Amino acid sequence: MSILVKDAWIVTQNSKREIKRGNVYIEENTIAEIGNVNVEAEHVIDGKDKILMPGLINTHAHVAMTNLRGMIDDVPLETFLERTFELDRQRDADALREGATLGIMEMLRTGTTTFVDFYYGEDIIASVAKEYGIRAYLGWAVLDEDKSTQKGNPVKNAESFIREFSSQPMIKPMVAPQGVYVCSEDTLLAARELAEKYDTLLTMHISETRKEVYEHRKKTGRRPVEYLADIEFLNPRLIGVHLVWLTLHEIRLLASHDVKVSHNPTSNMKLGNGGSMPLIEMLQHGILVTLGTDSAVTNNNLDMLELMKFASLLHKNERWDASVTHAQDILDFATVNAARALHLNAGSIEEGKIADLVLLDPWPNGLPLFKDNIISNIVYALNGLNVTHTIVNGKIVWKRS
Amino acid sequence: MSILVKDAWIVTQNSKREIKRGNVYIEENTIAEIGNVNVEAEHVIDGKDKILMPGLINTHAHVAMTNLRGMIDDVPLETFLERTFELDRQRDADALREGATLGIMEMLRTGTTTFVDFYYGEDIIASVAKEYGIRAYLGWAVLDEDKSTQKGNPVKNAESFIREFSSQPMIKPMVAPQGVYVCSEDTLLAARELAEKYDTLLTMHISETRKEVYEHRKKTGRRPVEYLADIEFLNPRLIGVHLVWLTLHEIRLLASHDVKVSHNPTSNMKLGNGGSMPLIEMLQHGILVTLGTDSAVTNNNLDMLELMKFASLLHKNERWDASVTHAQDILDFATVNAARALHLNAGSIEEGKIADLVLLDPWPNGLPLFKDNIISNIVYALNGLNVTHTIVNGKIVWKRS
Repeated sequence: MSILVKDAWIVTQNSKREIKRGNVYIEENTIAEIGNVNVEAEHVIDGKDKILMPGLINTHAHVAMTNLRGMIDDVPLETFLERTFELDRQRDADALREGATLGIMEMLRTGTTTFVDFYYGEDIIASVAKEYGIRAYLGWAVLDEDKSTQKGNPVKNAESFIREFSSQPMIKPMVAPQGVYVCSEDTLLAARELAEKYDTLLTMHISETRKEVYEHRKKTGRRPVEYLADIEFLNPRLIGVHLVWLTLHEIRLLASHDVKVSHNPTSNMKLGNGGSMPLIEMLQHGILVTLGTDSAVTNNNLDMLELMKFASLLHKNERWDASVTHAQDILDFATVNAARALHLNAGSIEEGKIADLVLLDPWPNGLPLFKDNIISNIVYALNGLNVTHTIVNGKIVWKRS
Repeated sequence: MSILVKDAWIVTQNSKREIKRGNVYIEENTIAEIGNVNVEAEHVIDGKDKILMPGLINTHAHVAMTNLRGMIDDVPLETFLERTFELDRQRDADALREGATLGIMEMLRTGTTTFVDFYYGEDIIASVAKEYGIRAYLGWAVLDEDKSTQKGNPVKNAESFIREFSSQPMIKPMVAPQGVYVCSEDTLLAARELAEKYDTLLTMHISETRKEVYEHRKKTGRRPVEYLADIEFLNPRLIGVHLVWLTLHEIRLLASHDVKVSHNPTSNMKLGNGGSMPLIEMLQHGILVTLGTDSAVTNNNLDMLELMKFASLLHKNERWDASVTHAQDILDFATVNAARALHLNAGSIEEGKIADLVLLDPWPNGLPLFKDNIISNIVYALNGLNVTHTIVNGKIVWKRS
């Protein structure tokens, strides 16, 4: 398989963040050449007046919940959690497959080429991901056995999942402790051990709500991140999710243990979690920040382009200062930063990188288009439905008809 | 001209906020029949699995600035204003026409059927609006002559514009005082008098920034809304824009004078105006709230569907409570409330109403779709590019090819 995208605006996201105009040639699953290249290719895509950019990477989703979209909104957080768990408990394998199919179609259609999922039943999601050709990092949810609705022991289930799927090139199993409120120290350390044994990544919901922080402190005398540092759970393979309610001391702990962050601004705003993730301080401390949509129950879509706008505007609004966020940084969160967090040789358009790319038609909401406003238009003006082609691992997995 | 939309989900926005399933028959510029109607029509549109809803109404735009999109972002407010005025000052009639064309195309493509504009050169915008078939309420910017770049006296220019365009069915001239910072008491009262003389609406930027409030108080001893009440400028034909920095006393003044509000959440967040418009208190006081995108320089698009999501999530986030806003209210802002503010016999799908409608394809970001999640999907999941048909005044002015 070979693809030639011709005459596009190329948002390279290389180390100089260059924007070029020209052709990109893809051979097998790799970006082979960028520039004036003009070879024969199986697929030729006209990129004229379009934007070619790295595929977006969503670092937090519960994709099997996509078919619960719009069922629980505008209620207090406690009511939301109660009703969501109630709905989710009743679902069978078919419902999970249906949700995963819808969610993965939506992600491909809106320019996401890689996602991190967090759920039980990741074997079902893996089979849907494989069918549709999306790159998937699938975190099996781990919690104390007596608090789980999974059959058997969640840590053992996670291990079975890892063993079964570890050799599939487009699927990367992960271990996903659900949160300090349902994970004992033993469970957390078993999760870490499992991740080390099989060399997988870890992801975990941390300090999303005030209640979580308050209750954990009451129980252990320490805030969640302090506690996780003390039990030696914090480590570079961990992608912490939400991290809304943090002290500066906790930010320093995350930074010193090289923990990666998945920021979920739309979900946090929609649930009224309160406050906002201390993004500015995290960046000041050198923490690697990425972006996640969370589920369609809280967001209510999986559109990474829309998400970038929320990510930027939330902090401008919180700090009463438009200069605290910059479009280029926000785009980095969703591309190069996320690729780094996932140890994935993608996230930028450079020769030798994996060919995970999307093409966008800027008409009409991203016009006029020129070198100096492309990044702004991507982050602030366009949305996922501007995508015309989604290429994952060198294959065209979606195109606008 | 007649149109039959068949077998759609119909979001009526009638007084019972009913959602129906069936056909809608449009004759000339009017919604003639809703239900099982099955007559011959010139245009038949298949609405199966699609959403038919009232056309969206944008109550604050500077549409001629659309071609400045993405040129000034992520800078402090003072820098933003300085650079914007600098860019805008250099523009000629062709540039205004180009901006208006792009903006109006974007609005029609994203489901806006009526907009309120605020600018000088509204005669140019009127001609573009007429050409593309959008319904336009065009507010000629009024300010003190010595502070204006307009040729001649702005109030007189506004009067000429009103006289020239008052007999065009799709164009409604308005008078638009720019703000207390550039309008003397005489200018404001002349604007009000002009609006009364020709029976037009008024619109004005009010209390957008802390600086505006601080300086007006320093100059007059009163906050802007207090001052406007004292000089008898507040009245039911006024659509106040932004209104971010208000006291409860000012909210009561707005309510008692039946002033309408155009809420511009995305613009306010992006500029880092600080705080947020006291939406909850306005609703408690019975104020009629509508939504505006503001210009593509501050937003950076004119997508009312995206805007509704920002409008709801901003306040959930500010109040740390997801239950302070409801999707149905937000949709009302953009449809029935705006129609009421504009004295327009539209904003809902009812027999006898003007046929300003849009059809949306919910695939994939608005699926699953059923009666109980349609409003949520419109407000929280879809965006303007889900629109497949835009009908204004009984004419199909845009459709997806």
